[in-house]
Amino acid sequence: MDKKEFALLAHEKWQGKIEVISRAEINSKEDLAVAYTPGVAEPCIKISENTDLSYKYTRRGNLVAVITDGTAVLGLGDIGPEAGMPVMEGKCALFKRFADVDAFPICIRSKDVDEIVRTVSLISGSFGGINLEDISAPRCIEIERRLKEECDIPVFHDDQHGTAVVVLSALLNALKLTNRNIKNIKAVINGAGSAGMAIARLFISCGMKNLILCDKYGSLYRGNPKMNPEQAKIAEITNPDNINSDLAGALVNADVFVGVSAPGVLTPEMISKMAGDPIVFAMANPVPEIMPDIAKSAGVKVIGTGRSDFPNQINNVLAFPGIFKGALSVRAHDINEDMMLAAANAIAGLISDNELCEDYIIPDAIDPRVSEAVADAVAKAAVSCGLSRI
Amino acid sequence: MDKKEFALLAHEKWQGKIEVISRAEINSKEDLAVAYTPGVAEPCIKISENTDLSYKYTRRGNLVAVITDGTAVLGLGDIGPEAGMPVMEGKCALFKRFADVDAFPICIRSKDVDEIVRTVSLISGSFGGINLEDISAPRCIEIERRLKEECDIPVFHDDQHGTAVVVLSALLNALKLTNRNIKNIKAVINGAGSAGMAIARLFISCGMKNLILCDKYGSLYRGNPKMNPEQAKIAEITNPDNINSDLAGALVNADVFVGVSAPGVLTPEMISKMAGDPIVFAMANPVPEIMPDIAKSAGVKVIGTGRSDFPNQINNVLAFPGIFKGALSVRAHDINEDMMLAAANAIAGLISDNELCEDYIIPDAIDPRVSEAVADAVAKAAVSCGLSRI
Repeated sequence: MDKKEFALLAHEKWQGKIEVISRAEINSKEDLAVAYTPGVAEPCIKISENTDLSYKYTRRGNLVAVITDGTAVLGLGDIGPEAGMPVMEGKCALFKRFADVDAFPICIRSKDVDEIVRTVSLISGSFGGINLEDISAPRCIEIERRLKEECDIPVFHDDQHGTAVVVLSALLNALKLTNRNIKNIKAVINGAGSAGMAIARLFISCGMKNLILCDKYGSLYRGNPKMNPEQAKIAEITNPDNINSDLAGALVNADVFVGVSAPGVLTPEMISKMAGDPIVFAMANPVPEIMPDIAKSAGVKVIGTGRSDFPNQINNVLAFPGIFKGALSVRAHDINEDMMLAAANAIAGLISDNELCEDYIIPDAIDPRVSEAVADAVAKAAVSCGLSRI
Repeated sequence: MDKKEFALLAHEKWQGKIEVISRAEINSKEDLAVAYTPGVAEPCIKISENTDLSYKYTRRGNLVAVITDGTAVLGLGDIGPEAGMPVMEGKCALFKRFADVDAFPICIRSKDVDEIVRTVSLISGSFGGINLEDISAPRCIEIERRLKEECDIPVFHDDQHGTAVVVLSALLNALKLTNRNIKNIKAVINGAGSAGMAIARLFISCGMKNLILCDKYGSLYRGNPKMNPEQAKIAEITNPDNINSDLAGALVNADVFVGVSAPGVLTPEMISKMAGDPIVFAMANPVPEIMPDIAKSAGVKVIGTGRSDFPNQINNVLAFPGIFKGALSVRAHDINEDMMLAAANAIAGLISDNELCEDYIIPDAIDPRVSEAVADAVAKAAVSCGLSRI
């Protein structure tokens, strides 16, 4: 049986990857009278007097909604809300498995930004956090921005920020290994969608000065008529020399290539024009921007991909479970850049100087230490920023 | 410690009465590659080709949303969406406990009918059924009616129809015990809110001819200027002699009193004017329309209440878990009156002729036979009506 067939059969056997169980034992009429009427009236009354007590008396304090509209599911594109649900369920399973955070999948039968924002906002009182997923760009950026304004709980688009956190953690260790400082390097991000732009913002928050984003049509520069409004915003704070060039031109003397783009777009010729000991994160999936063996032959020092069958897998599961666990633990009302930077540093910090090497710059996806380390760092950062509500 | 304090502490200890767990074991990178990327793409692709396969590859086929706006929570009234959540979680715990149906609680931060309908409709692709709960009348009637039109999954307002099913099952056995036929009796329902009207409709569907609804201002009759639009509709099909009277007048020669109203409104004097061997269902909670001992002294033959500390508890938990289990098992796209009648007959049928007596006309709330019997009957009725989709 091939792997695809096996995965399909596994899903058929699971009949859903999540399950909602009862935490209350109900074996007698007396139990019923505590968990349901009349006993249940007591926590209801308390919460009606102080909504914050919903975190004490309901599951909200450990509960994240994983929400999609099905418009950008994996690499499959706009396959519809119901068809996105296996991914959402998988995400929920990972939340529980890696951080003991309860997560529940919801798909929305609308592609209208206003309607999606309103729907999520109206159900947000049921949850402690909102994880947006697989929503197409640039809509996802506006949806997240507006939900952050409207909701009093953390809202996080994992495809943007989860990716950014994990790439940054990998970059920090790759720079450490090659003795470079993020302030002095040049990086190129290929793929100026929502993930590429989120990576750029987090790199800049971490001190990077020289960063160029490229899209299919070449570099993002101020005045480029091909950019969408979100790209125009990011062009204001990147590409300091305002270079108008193709990817190959942008990569000249770059220390770092980050690809969130398409298979095979990074060539050995381009690598040969990069600075010494180039660092490459080629995250197109399943076929990366360049295969690791080719990259290495062309002189790349450190390469990471999105794949589990090569070293240095850039996997969001390193970030989102711990980030939400940390945010929920201090009831943070937002997940901000400080918290994301703390998460990236925590992930990177799990690899000791002794262990750090070209093939091990980032912990394994199922490393059991990760979510706790991330949660602790994120909680502390939230408290430092005054975002905690406990 | 008193019971209220005990219930509050139990809720604090539970930290929520539901929990979302993973059905997929994820212990290795290989597991991750099946439950998440890249394996998860396979069920996504299948569902995108045929939305019905969401029942096969996701949890949808066993999953109900329990939804409120917090406007009519227990007897507490409009206490807000978050404050209604302990009840919703309790309901979800009961779904799982009694019928192994997964249920997830959602509160909506709006009281606007259009907005509630739109929100529920937009998230309905995530679920196999919708259970509405604790939404104030008459809004709940319109919300349910419109959602039934807009959604392709069953929508059921338990406060209306769950109550109606259980009262009908109790009535059927009480009539059997006292040798009467539903076609020939006179019944009065006191309380013409959404529950009272749903009970009336189900009684009529079951063959009842002579039925009067009363509200605080007296009987519902054609031309009564005090009625709201929903009450005007029900007055068209009840009160055959179009009697304009107070409750006492309506009860003259009635065989049955059903109260979904207020404590103490049924007096021994009223009972003395009813037909012989009167049947009383006094469901105001926690204090019924008349206490059982007083009712018995006044000549009542059979009395049921909403309370677990008296015989014949009219408890919705007898109905909703099995009704949804049955509907989900055949993927019915609606829960109609035939299915509700089947549920009522199944509940009543669990008590054998030998067991049937004044103090045992309805199974115990935690009787383990109930949900399976109800589910079987409901599934069969759905298939008979052509509502099944498998």
